[in-house]
Amino acid sequence: MPERTPADAGARQLHLNAFLMSTGHHEASWRLPESDSFAGTQVAHFQQLARTAERGAFDSIFFADSPVLHGDVRQRPYGTLEPTVLLSAIAAVTKRIGLIATASTTYNDPYNLARRFASLDHISGGRAGWNVVTTAGEAAARNFSLEDQPAHWRRYERAAEFLDAARKLWDSWEDDAAVGDKAAGVWADSSRVHPINHTGRYFRIQGPLDVPRSPQGHPVIVQAGSSEDGKDFAARYAEAVFTAQQTLAEAQRFYADLKRKTAAVGRNPEHIKILPGIVPVIGSTEHEARRLEKQLDELIHPEHARKQLAGVLRVSPESLPLDAQLPEDLPSEDAIEGAKSRYTLIVELARRERLTVRQLIGRLGGGRGHRTFSGTPEQVADAIQEWFEKGAADGFNIMPPVLPSGLDTFVDHVIPILRSRGLFRHQYSGRTLREHYGLPRPENGIAPADSAEAAETERAVPAAV
Amino acid sequence: MPERTPADAGARQLHLNAFLMSTGHHEASWRLPESDSFAGTQVAHFQQLARTAERGAFDSIFFADSPVLHGDVRQRPYGTLEPTVLLSAIAAVTKRIGLIATASTTYNDPYNLARRFASLDHISGGRAGWNVVTTAGEAAARNFSLEDQPAHWRRYERAAEFLDAARKLWDSWEDDAAVGDKAAGVWADSSRVHPINHTGRYFRIQGPLDVPRSPQGHPVIVQAGSSEDGKDFAARYAEAVFTAQQTLAEAQRFYADLKRKTAAVGRNPEHIKILPGIVPVIGSTEHEARRLEKQLDELIHPEHARKQLAGVLRVSPESLPLDAQLPEDLPSEDAIEGAKSRYTLIVELARRERLTVRQLIGRLGGGRGHRTFSGTPEQVADAIQEWFEKGAADGFNIMPPVLPSGLDTFVDHVIPILRSRGLFRHQYSGRTLREHYGLPRPENGIAPADSAEAAETERAVPAAV
Repeated sequence: MPERTPADAGARQLHLNAFLMSTGHHEASWRLPESDSFAGTQVAHFQQLARTAERGAFDSIFFADSPVLHGDVRQRPYGTLEPTVLLSAIAAVTKRIGLIATASTTYNDPYNLARRFASLDHISGGRAGWNVVTTAGEAAARNFSLEDQPAHWRRYERAAEFLDAARKLWDSWEDDAAVGDKAAGVWADSSRVHPINHTGRYFRIQGPLDVPRSPQGHPVIVQAGSSEDGKDFAARYAEAVFTAQQTLAEAQRFYADLKRKTAAVGRNPEHIKILPGIVPVIGSTEHEARRLEKQLDELIHPEHARKQLAGVLRVSPESLPLDAQLPEDLPSEDAIEGAKSRYTLIVELARRERLTVRQLIGRLGGGRGHRTFSGTPEQVADAIQEWFEKGAADGFNIMPPVLPSGLDTFVDHVIPILRSRGLFRHQYSGRTLREHYGLPRPENGIAPADSAEAAETERAVPAAV
Repeated sequence: MPERTPADAGARQLHLNAFLMSTGHHEASWRLPESDSFAGTQVAHFQQLARTAERGAFDSIFFADSPVLHGDVRQRPYGTLEPTVLLSAIAAVTKRIGLIATASTTYNDPYNLARRFASLDHISGGRAGWNVVTTAGEAAARNFSLEDQPAHWRRYERAAEFLDAARKLWDSWEDDAAVGDKAAGVWADSSRVHPINHTGRYFRIQGPLDVPRSPQGHPVIVQAGSSEDGKDFAARYAEAVFTAQQTLAEAQRFYADLKRKTAAVGRNPEHIKILPGIVPVIGSTEHEARRLEKQLDELIHPEHARKQLAGVLRVSPESLPLDAQLPEDLPSEDAIEGAKSRYTLIVELARRERLTVRQLIGRLGGGRGHRTFSGTPEQVADAIQEWFEKGAADGFNIMPPVLPSGLDTFVDHVIPILRSRGLFRHQYSGRTLREHYGLPRPENGIAPADSAEAAETERAVPAAV
């Protein structure tokens, strides 16, 4: 790789997010001798990980979420702490790193959720981010008095109205509304605190929010869906996108497409940061990295994983011998309902790399469709640099296969290389998550118009009285 | 007062909760020179208060809450951080003190809220409590797509079903379900993780919860409504009750009534702790205490407060001269819709103590209907001891008029007296909030029956196949 030096400091810089998950992203990571099987409910574990990521000057940490127990608890640690609550405990022991929580627009109310994110943003001094999800699956629906999930388009329609309403709520206090004038006995200028009177297809919300505007104005909006609806939503609302891309060519296409879509709705394409996921399996030699990958893959129950794979591919488990490649006569993608992009990703991955079913299971167990990359710290840094410089990424969503060791290794061995090449910050220059990602603080969208109107009303009233 | 010595250590002990609120409970506290007007959104302020309360070995701290901006932001700091998120950041900097958040059963979903409290209980190591409220008022309803609030009885009916569903969710994992058997590759015993299949008038919830059972099993359930519906709900569900009582006789009646109601539904009346509120205005002399009270009362805008009082009493502000007592010809309580107990409390307080409107405004501004007590630390300790020993209280909800100074004074000057009298712990003996309050850890209500059923099903299946 051609080196960039710190002298290039003004040059474009990588953004790195640490995607945290109990003992790591590899589904068998909890079985390693080094792992604490019960780490998933231990706040100290996550506080330690966040401090490690902050030591590495990561832009942010991130938790996925779904309001349903969706996996088989025999196989790996499922059942996770609610992210906004967990991140608040992490905010208390960190200073700079961004804190991104996933939350569903299908199974929350805008008022409550907007308030929780505003609270987290106050508590963290402007470090909150929200990964907006619409939550697929009937199992989640059945935790919320529904028989089945709302249709895909309807979930996205609700998500868009939810975001619009949340943004109005975040803007319902002008930034300088609270004045704290002790002498006059005026705590806030009530003409700068506005009802939102939102009326839409899904919600009617009077407002204002019962918390003043937060340090960032709005939390950073993150999105991770890759369907067409998801990309349209991202183009309109997202400021960072987490995405699963297996090859440089695919990642370049996705990157160009989403930047173009973002420009097409009138937004600055630099204000949407695209971060493909990468599961870095790091060894001091290539051989050591491969050995760790193999050790992990061998801890997966092949029969259970084969059954899961057969379910996704809509074939019988018996038609998938472990040491053969996928059969030629799989269903066509058109016949698959509901998880098309995952189906296609899996089949294409297997065909492209001529993987046996056993190898495919290992690859999926490692990153659930995200790109796994095994190698030395130099090789991992090369892989990151290549995509970054070839128009495939603004940065990466780092998904360590094993935690905490995989994050320690990345911070201690990969980040110094990225820094020496002038690709990544040596320390934080900003204080908020928006500053880390180079995103603007949102203007207050509700206040100017309403204030003008209120001012006009105030002028009008005396004349009329 | 007769002294009790530490030798009485086996004797019944007070329980103390610190009710925290931005710059204090007196509505003009933010105007004092010592106060930080913007403390309400600063996590460091609340973390400091929690550490002070923990230094005093308080059982718990507590935040009120309502999902609506219900006050006039000109008058005092309104707009508060969401309590479950705030308490998580406080959990991170404390070790023993209980953490009680208010949350509404009318404007939340059981699945999401049960999960947030389970998460807070995990994060705090068993220190979470939930003050269950049904949230009166049409303004809150209008933040949740409703025109008006559901009827009182309907809110309580929903609350009861909400609690039943939440308890099933908290019990959906048996305590020992997660086994972490690395060698066998079994993370949890899935036969010990149960769907709840709740079906009621308000909710259908499949479950299980997506977080393992928490250290306390259930958060401590707190209740603060004083209507008949509220008391019935408390008798059935509450483990601690915060209540506003102005006189010893009233407090004794309330105490005896609620203990009797609790026994009547088959619960141990010792497992419901009754804590009247007290606003202690403390001075090193009586004179100094009265001066602080007067200083605070004089900072209230009398005109604004008179308008608010007139609204509660359903009369015109002009009919309430500031330096006269309340007029004789007030509406009868029967004519008041919706806030009967508050109306009666205010009128009785004014008549009993022959307060002028100005004095009444001061009293209400200090504690919103809770008992204000001004005096020296000895006198405050006497007042606490008297109610505690005369069957009016199991402890107190301490509502400092000014924060942080009012809590510092209480911890440094009142608590040592209570300790020297053998009435209050010198240090924590337990680790969880349940242990502080002397409450049992709930048995798992769902598991035994379901397990038996599951075991039977397992036995039945092979025979049938």
